[in-house]
This record gives sequence, C-alpha cells and structure tokens, in this order.
Amino acid sequence: MSRVIAIVGLGLIGGSLAKAISKYTDNKVWGIDNNPPVIDEALECNAIDRAIKPDELNNADIIFLCLYPDECVDFIIKNAAYLRKDAIVTDVCGVKASVVEKILPIAKEYGFEYLPGHPMAGKEKGGFYNSDSQLFKGASYIFTPCSCSQNTVNLLKTLALEIGFGRITITTPKEHDQMIAFTSQIPHILACAYMFSPRSEKHYGYSAGSYRDISRVADINENLWTQAFIQNRECLVKETDELIENLTILRDAVNNKDYLNLKALLKKGGDLKRRLG
Amino acid sequence: MSRVIAIVGLGLIGGSLAKAISKYTDNKVWGIDNNPPVIDEALECNAIDRAIKPDELNNADIIFLCLYPDECVDFIIKNAAYLRKDAIVTDVCGVKASVVEKILPIAKEYGFEYLPGHPMAGKEKGGFYNSDSQLFKGASYIFTPCSCSQNTVNLLKTLALEIGFGRITITTPKEHDQMIAFTSQIPHILACAYMFSPRSEKHYGYSAGSYRDISRVADINENLWTQAFIQNRECLVKETDELIENLTILRDAVNNKDYLNLKALLKKGGDLKRRLG
Repeated sequence: MSRVIAIVGLGLIGGSLAKAISKYTDNKVWGIDNNPPVIDEALECNAIDRAIKPDELNNADIIFLCLYPDECVDFIIKNAAYLRKDAIVTDVCGVKASVVEKILPIAKEYGFEYLPGHPMAGKEKGGFYNSDSQLFKGASYIFTPCSCSQNTVNLLKTLALEIGFGRITITTPKEHDQMIAFTSQIPHILACAYMFSPRSEKHYGYSAGSYRDISRVADINENLWTQAFIQNRECLVKETDELIENLTILRDAVNNKDYLNLKALLKKGGDLKRRLG
Repeated sequence: MSRVIAIVGLGLIGGSLAKAISKYTDNKVWGIDNNPPVIDEALECNAIDRAIKPDELNNADIIFLCLYPDECVDFIIKNAAYLRKDAIVTDVCGVKASVVEKILPIAKEYGFEYLPGHPMAGKEKGGFYNSDSQLFKGASYIFTPCSCSQNTVNLLKTLALEIGFGRITITTPKEHDQMIAFTSQIPHILACAYMFSPRSEKHYGYSAGSYRDISRVADINENLWTQAFIQNRECLVKETDELIENLTILRDAVNNKDYLNLKALLKKGGDLKRRLG
C-alpha cells in the first residue's frame, strides 16, 4: 500500500530518508525545507515527489521530523493542528526523553500517533548534499514507543527494514539516552577533548590509525551537538564522570609503575572488547 | 648493493619487515626467532632467506631488533660481542628514550652504529601470521638519531622508502616519546577506559561508527603495552592529566547547561580537527 510520507527538514538524515524511501519503496515522498536551493535539488534528483508547506500536512500518512531537537518541538507546537488524527509522527532526534516529554502531550491533545525514533547513522559532513540513499545500510534503528499502537510500531519497523536498516531496537527513552551517552556522545566529547592537546598541532608524521580513529568525530556540528549534549545532560555527565574515573585508575597504575595492576587492567579492557565486539 | 639484513623477532613488525624487504629490495634477509614453527613458516613463504642463531650476526650489515622494549635491551646486552664494528643496529620500539639510554652505551662500548627507529604501523592482531609486506604502505617511519653517522641515517631512510613507507620523521627520543604518548598511547588507554563503562555490555543495537572507532584499539596486547606505558610514564601521565582536565572542562559546560561556552568549546575542537586533519 502506497502512503504519503512527509519529510520535514532535508538535511543529512532527512535527505537520506527521502532518497532511500523514494528508491526502495513505492510510497510518495513530500518534502518541507526552509532552504529553496535544497528543495530544488531534492526535486531534481527525485528524492521527493513534491515540495509542500506545513498546511498541506493533512494529506500525509507519516511525518518524519528531521530537525534539531528544539526545532522538532517548535515545529510540532506550531503545526499540530494540520495533522490528521490517524497520522503517524516520528522524529529522528539523537536524544529522546527531553523531546518525548514535550511532543507526547501534544500528540495526546491532537490525537495523532507519535513514535519517537533514532536512526543510528551519520557522517561527519551534514546537509542534503551529503545525503545518501545507502546511509542506513545495516544500521540500527532505535524506537522508543510510549503511547502509540503496535500497528504503528510494526509499520515503521517494516519501513526501516525496507530502506536498508539492519536491526531494530525497541527500548525506553531513558534507556536510549543512557546508551547513546555511551555509544555516541562520549566519543564526540572525547574527540574534542583529545584535539585540545597541544600535541595535536604537531601530529603529522607521528600519527596513524589510532589518532585518526579517535579524532575523527571531532569534526563536529557544534550547533546540533550542543543541544544534544545539554538535553541529555544527566546521562552524559554520569558517563563522563565514570570515564574520568576509569582513566584515572589507568593513569595511577602507570604513574605508580604498577606493572601487575596495569597489565590486569589492560587485559580486562582487551577481554571486554574481544567479547563484546 | 645487496646487504645482509638480520631481523631479530619475527612477530607482526619483524615479520612484515622481513616480507617487505624480501619483496621490494635485493637484500638478503636472515631471521632469528625462538619459535621454530614461525621460522619454518618464514622460510616457507620466503620472508627470510636463512634462519640464524645470534652467533652468526657477525655477517649481518643491518640488524633490526623487533622485540618488546625490555627484550631488545636484553638481546643486545647478551649478543653485542657478535656484531661487527661497521654493523648498523636499529630497534622498532614504540618508546625511545628509555630504550636508547640503555642501548647507546653498549653501542659506544662495542663500536657498532645504532639508529633508534619507530615504524608507525600496526594491527590489532600481532604475530608472524598477521604480518604483511604491505603493512608499511604510506606510513611514517620515525628515527631518533643520537650518535650514528649521517650515512647510516640515509641508508635506513632509503630502505624505509623502498619498502613502502610514505614519510620519514627525524626527531629526538624525548620529542618522539611526547608525541607518541598523544598519537598512540592515549588512544589505547582511552579505549580501555571506555570499555570499562557498564554500558559496553549492552552496546549492540545502540552503536555505530563512533563506538567502533573509539573502542577499536582496546583489543590490546597487555604484555607489550604495559611495558610501553610504564617506560613512557612521564609523558603519558602528563598527557592523560591534560586529557582529564579538558574532559572536565567539557563536562562542566554540559553540567552547567552553559550553551555558549559548550558551543565555543565544540567549535574549537571541530576547527582544530578540520585544520589539522
């Protein structure tokens, strides 16, 4: 059955969703974006079938909110009245609890289905021009259902698998935010802290894969990540404190020339990595 | 001019050097290893032309010490008397000052040339069976000449470029150790500290490239790295303390919901990465 899927915000994720849905499904894709050249490009390359304004959302069956967290909430506050009662709204924000607590009451008030989601894919470079129908190949799509029906969950799961995702994770917003602080936010915090070393200026000629991998995500979009970090403040601060504590344990073992303890700690890290992948 | 090059220790680096020198140059490669199956395999795949015992080293023009730092020093103490006075000895240890200060007096006493070196290449999995003639493709080779002639430096530089290295860095042991604490040792310390998070157990379904890149080198050889970390204690502790300080600055900005400061910090990290690569 062909549906109308509206993508709000044609950046890296929205653009990639539009391209993948257009390529791999027979749904119609409509796009909303403030940036006219992006709309032109999206129409040109058949990522979207139509460019619409928010007041045309009453014809959409599924709406993907592909904006920054604060902008997703603002958009829904402003445009909830246009949505049909059987419409499904999903967002792609990298933090869930803070977004869900704002959108859920609006969903209840206006009666639309809301399924919070987080497609676990990205690139260092954002924007529609870096979007790619292959971006989601094999990636995880996390959903944190709160109030919607099982039918809605099943429908979005199926769509996710159709456009290339390799795994669906169902969890709570809180569990999502704790896990994402670890798997995604800490690596970004770390990469920035790492680049602050005075030695980064001279790395060329001394660096190889280790430097490259740890510093990769320092090439960060500071607007997006400032929002994401502060909205997930509690989980991220906890995770950072634990990391600092563990770094200090290793630092002390080195400083004390404690061979036995240091070797045991490194073996523990290695065993964890080998077991958990 | 064809020389006799002896490789002491046919692990990942020694094995890869043997394979690359045999493949890309017309030098003779002799191998020393305590492990008979490794010697058999190295002869079988023509990585080495001959297996020798240390007392045959008087026929070698260049000797690569491809052992752990402590073992390099032990080997030279035990076998220096076999070396010719015009022989060139180089080691491949990832720490330099602590190794150099022990080998240099022996080189002076016995009269051989000693050029400390550090080929900046590796893999998570060690051992001859993971060695590869292509391992050094485009990598940096760092040399820290202390007492040897310019001819010796030139000879090893040329050999390094012949077997695939892309760049030669000449520096002091102290500068090397400071830079390596940053580019190589900190990523390994961090990867282990990161895996210690209770969240690592549940990462599957929540993780993507960021997790993969930061945790990659946690699959560590604890015997080798315990030696390397403690031998480079001063530089590594300094670098770790600075990292913890920078992490704390970012942590505090998140904790204080200090949008402006956090955004400025992330922009600083991003700008550094974009400028320095």
